[in-house]
Amino acid sequence: MAEGTAAASRLRLAGLCFFLQLLTIVLFAAFVRYGPESGPGLCSPQSNCSRRDPEPGSGYARFRDAHLQALLGFGFLLAFLGRYGPGSVATSLLVVAFAVQWALLAQGLFYFSLKGKIYVGAQSMVSADFCTAAVLISSGAVLGRVNPIQMLLMTLLEVPLFACNEFILLSLMGISDSGGSLTVHTFGAYFGLMVSRALRQPRADEQEEQQDAGRQPDVFAVLGTLYLWIFWPSFASATTAQDSAEPWAVLNVYFSLAASTLAAFVLSPILYEEGTLQAAQIQDAALVGAAVMGMAGEMLLTPFGALVAGFLASHLSLLGSRFLSPILRSRLKIQDTCGVHNVHGLPGVLGTLVGTLLAGLATADAYGGRLERVFPLVAQGSRTAGGQAWWQLCALPVTLILAALGGSLTGARGRTRPWGERRGAGWQHPRLTAPTPR
Amino acid sequence: MAEGTAAASRLRLAGLCFFLQLLTIVLFAAFVRYGPESGPGLCSPQSNCSRRDPEPGSGYARFRDAHLQALLGFGFLLAFLGRYGPGSVATSLLVVAFAVQWALLAQGLFYFSLKGKIYVGAQSMVSADFCTAAVLISSGAVLGRVNPIQMLLMTLLEVPLFACNEFILLSLMGISDSGGSLTVHTFGAYFGLMVSRALRQPRADEQEEQQDAGRQPDVFAVLGTLYLWIFWPSFASATTAQDSAEPWAVLNVYFSLAASTLAAFVLSPILYEEGTLQAAQIQDAALVGAAVMGMAGEMLLTPFGALVAGFLASHLSLLGSRFLSPILRSRLKIQDTCGVHNVHGLPGVLGTLVGTLLAGLATADAYGGRLERVFPLVAQGSRTAGGQAWWQLCALPVTLILAALGGSLTGARGRTRPWGERRGAGWQHPRLTAPTPR
Amino acid sequence: MAEGTAAASRLRLAGLCFFLQLLTIVLFAAFVRYGPESGPGLCSPQSNCSRRDPEPGSGYARFRDAHLQALLGFGFLLAFLGRYGPGSVATSLLVVAFAVQWALLAQGLFYFSLKGKIYVGAQSMVSADFCTAAVLISSGAVLGRVNPIQMLLMTLLEVPLFACNEFILLSLMGISDSGGSLTVHTFGAYFGLMVSRALRQPRADEQEEQQDAGRQPDVFAVLGTLYLWIFWPSFASATTAQDSAEPWAVLNVYFSLAASTLAAFVLSPILYEEGTLQAAQIQDAALVGAAVMGMAGEMLLTPFGALVAGFLASHLSLLGSRFLSPILRSRLKIQDTCGVHNVHGLPGVLGTLVGTLLAGLATADAYGGRLERVFPLVAQGSRTAGGQAWWQLCALPVTLILAALGGSLTGARGRTRPWGERRGAGWQHPRLTAPTPR
Repeated sequence: MAEGTAAASRLRLAGLCFFLQLLTIVLFAAFVRYGPESGPGLCSPQSNCSRRDPEPGSGYARFRDAHLQALLGFGFLLAFLGRYGPGSVATSLLVVAFAVQWALLAQGLFYFSLKGKIYVGAQSMVSADFCTAAVLISSGAVLGRVNPIQMLLMTLLEVPLFACNEFILLSLMGISDSGGSLTVHTFGAYFGLMVSRALRQPRADEQEEQQDAGRQPDVFAVLGTLYLWIFWPSFASATTAQDSAEPWAVLNVYFSLAASTLAAFVLSPILYEEGTLQAAQIQDAALVGAAVMGMAGEMLLTPFGALVAGFLASHLSLLGSRFLSPILRSRLKIQDTCGVHNVHGLPGVLGTLVGTLLAGLATADAYGGRLERVFPLVAQGSRTAGGQAWWQLCALPVTLILAALGGSLTGARGRTRPWGERRGAGWQHPRLTAPTPR
Repeated sequence: MAEGTAAASRLRLAGLCFFLQLLTIVLFAAFVRYGPESGPGLCSPQSNCSRRDPEPGSGYARFRDAHLQALLGFGFLLAFLGRYGPGSVATSLLVVAFAVQWALLAQGLFYFSLKGKIYVGAQSMVSADFCTAAVLISSGAVLGRVNPIQMLLMTLLEVPLFACNEFILLSLMGISDSGGSLTVHTFGAYFGLMVSRALRQPRADEQEEQQDAGRQPDVFAVLGTLYLWIFWPSFASATTAQDSAEPWAVLNVYFSLAASTLAAFVLSPILYEEGTLQAAQIQDAALVGAAVMGMAGEMLLTPFGALVAGFLASHLSLLGSRFLSPILRSRLKIQDTCGVHNVHGLPGVLGTLVGTLLAGLATADAYGGRLERVFPLVAQGSRTAGGQAWWQLCALPVTLILAALGGSLTGARGRTRPWGERRGAGWQHPRLTAPTPR
Repeated sequence: MAEGTAAASRLRLAGLCFFLQLLTIVLFAAFVRYGPESGPGLCSPQSNCSRRDPEPGSGYARFRDAHLQALLGFGFLLAFLGRYGPGSVATSLLVVAFAVQWALLAQGLFYFSLKGKIYVGAQSMVSADFCTAAVLISSGAVLGRVNPIQMLLMTLLEVPLFACNEFILLSLMGISDSGGSLTVHTFGAYFGLMVSRALRQPRADEQEEQQDAGRQPDVFAVLGTLYLWIFWPSFASATTAQDSAEPWAVLNVYFSLAASTLAAFVLSPILYEEGTLQAAQIQDAALVGAAVMGMAGEMLLTPFGALVAGFLASHLSLLGSRFLSPILRSRLKIQDTCGVHNVHGLPGVLGTLVGTLLAGLATADAYGGRLERVFPLVAQGSRTAGGQAWWQLCALPVTLILAALGGSLTGARGRTRPWGERRGAGWQHPRLTAPTPR
């Protein structure tokens, strides 16, 4: 009978995939077109696309950035594989494949639509990849405790909420957050944590977490670390406004990565008895160093600022994983499979605070021509630097509230029928690709 | 005595490698020069290089594309490693190292020669990499059943035939096939299948296929999948004509990948009892989604078309692997180690049919300025859209016949002495890097 | 007690990391600024930055190169992991994280300083990555026999010496060495070998080398090989002067890689009894083929020259590993964990000799407009081609002497207290991440 239930569950997943793909195809056929310029400069002046204005000549550069940006989600994927093993790869790829299509639709409604049509191009792919990254971060919190159907449901609900939050922050509040400290890292982490809380099951969690660890973590952790070092500096620059402004963001991320890695060697031996630094810990440090530069990357004007930020963020993350995670688990009943709170949540919040500080200190003298690119509203005179800092700070509670509410609702939705199968097969069925012993 | 035979076989391989490298060096010294412009714009007006005309200013962009293009072959390599294990890597790299040099010579004769000299540059490296990819696809069909000497022999014969087929299609027939649905995927798959058929050995095949599976498939399959998602969209654009035309091809491939991956989750649980989706299957779906967009990638004008094509191709491939592969194996005596028929052959044919359909539907209104780039002969008025579609369709049997004939001859050649060692050591010697138990 | 000593050693490492990071932050705060143009064109005319003059418009191209260049160090890292296993990854990443920061400071003093400030940008990141690559090569010689503290100490001393040697060669002597045959490969290899000699311990070395081999070498060796083939051609072009000159260097490296790989199949079966070519050997061949093109890459005017050079270098390296390495080990007491002498040292020297030969043969007719880029002093008339060749040749002993002296001093320094712990815990403590049996 358990066999029959598993087969039914698989068929239900197949049906859901079929339905969702059909839905996306129909929606794409009805609404989505390629932009008339077939690329970056896809916003006509009268459209409501509130992103950065395209520049003539930067088409190729932006396209390349878009391409590299498409890698972002996979960086997280590799990172989580290092922590959780390749058993989760099928589910994660399913989430990516669906989230990219869904994000194009959801974000297209907010950003790229014109006369009832959504015009996609390189820039919208970048946005969709950012959204996919946030979904992957959220999935890191619940990995191993939800079945693929619940994962798809979570994606279905998180993507529109992400697009909504992003629209509020970037377009309505005029926040500058090119690397997604707030929109991607903070939102994704706290959304996932609240889903994890709502989905918690009292028994059998600990043993499950144990049984999967250490399958081939070294290989994936090493590769994930290399991947992050190699590609992340480009990610940071993918959404900065002009090409000439890019190198600073890239270099800031690079410095932050270096300092964050070194910091992991400082605190780990003190906090942990065994003292042997695992590759996964160094990978986390690299993630942290990059996450903290998401907002501040294009604002920082001196290299040592990036070193300090990376150094502090790595310490904060390690302290959080040592002292805060046990509290989350025991008091707040939040399980966090891949440690997304320490690796994405805390650094995202810290990055937002750093960005707020820098926005408050911004002066036209120090930034020069860059001011217009980084803080266009300040440059136009419609805001003071202090006002910009105030808005940057306000964006943090907005994101936290949206993420927490949305995550709680999603998790509660996932607990009820028909998708979640309140008790029984749905919960016990751990993953699609259960590691069968060979 | 078996030891002595193995040693002799190794020395024979060493001698063959030495001879081939010396031959290539001599031929390069005699005929190959760097283009006068040292790069993309290497065709002087009076040359017979029939590829796209170079544009001033696009040098750097094309160079980068060429660089990325060099990755294509390795994508297949990684993909096959996932299926067959790292034991085949030495042979595969040997094939790549030789095929690249040989392809430059063979294709140079057709495309880049002028006054008895072959002028190489970034564009010719791209072409050579395409050819290497086709050779790797063919090798996927016979992997594990041929020795390195036979593999080199196959490369020696396949490369000129590939160049000949490509020349007929692109230059003589005026086909548009920028991503190689026909020239790379279909040609490579059917060539390899016919070689496999000619080289079949009645006994001991099944057991050999079993013994090697599952060595470290997960790691390579995961990496191969990530690799394909990350880099393939660029491949598709590497050979499209102008930079401004690129994003469509990239986005089409990306959408096709996503739909194809989702489709694998739909049909797999229905077709296969066990229902657990392996990473290798998802990798195959990604390959399929990309292969089907080879020809149609730059022709599709709407995103939902790419979704539909990827969705259908994935289903076709899965049905083929479930129902067609057993027939191929039992009736036609064709063994297909890495499943290249389902992953490259069928999607390549489907992609060609889609491309034919789109060519027939092409109108100057819908394409606008792009018509000249995608279908130059139609834009010049020397062909109607229907005529172009007819030629596109005719290219399919031409490729199939050339691949089948060439593969059969190559396989028959490989069975006779002196290279093949009709019976005995040559056949038993499975690979250069036999996996020695540790 | 051994436990207590290990804990003390870990705390000492934590303290050292903390101190070094603090030192770097202070020095960065005091001296390092982003260049006024925030990118490539960071040298004002009156500065003493003696590198190539920036070109307007090439900013984006150079930035991308810089980004790719950042991968160079990781290529070596992956290569060494293939040889030594993932256990060394923590130490290697620690070295990378510190070396990048330190190299920016050390090289900034020589190249990018102006009025007491160091101006960093994309170009200085490229230089820092080259320096990091040399440090990683050196670490390959001593990997597994030093603790992380000694590794950091080695980095601390090698980086300034590297910057000094580079300054002497490129700025004072006017050498052309864009890919670092001499400055990176030769310097790094011989520096590391001399450190290894000074740090040798008479007993227990052989067994340690044995116990770690073969943990997961195949996966890393395969990935390392792919990585080198994919990315190295870009490395070679990252520091060549103008964009239009790039393709030659890229193509030369590519041809050299192919010939070198084929050559490994020629000599390996003859030199080694077992005859089965391991993936690690092919990886070494790829490294060799790329290292030999470091200096000559932008000088070679014909493709077959690159084929010949790669072919010869691969043979030289294999002969060295068969006949020279045992002599080094037994007579000169130099242990070479990852074989850097054969893979980087010998090809670097050979590459320098090839570069010297080509410099001597350079004529304005053959090079045309490229002469000014490759040999600016010859083009300006202040040197003859023979004079340039003479200087290129003289750079070899200069580099060898500096590397040998520096390495010996560093090794001797590492043997004394307080860092090295002359006997006892420091020596016995093999790595931070000792592979604990699971």
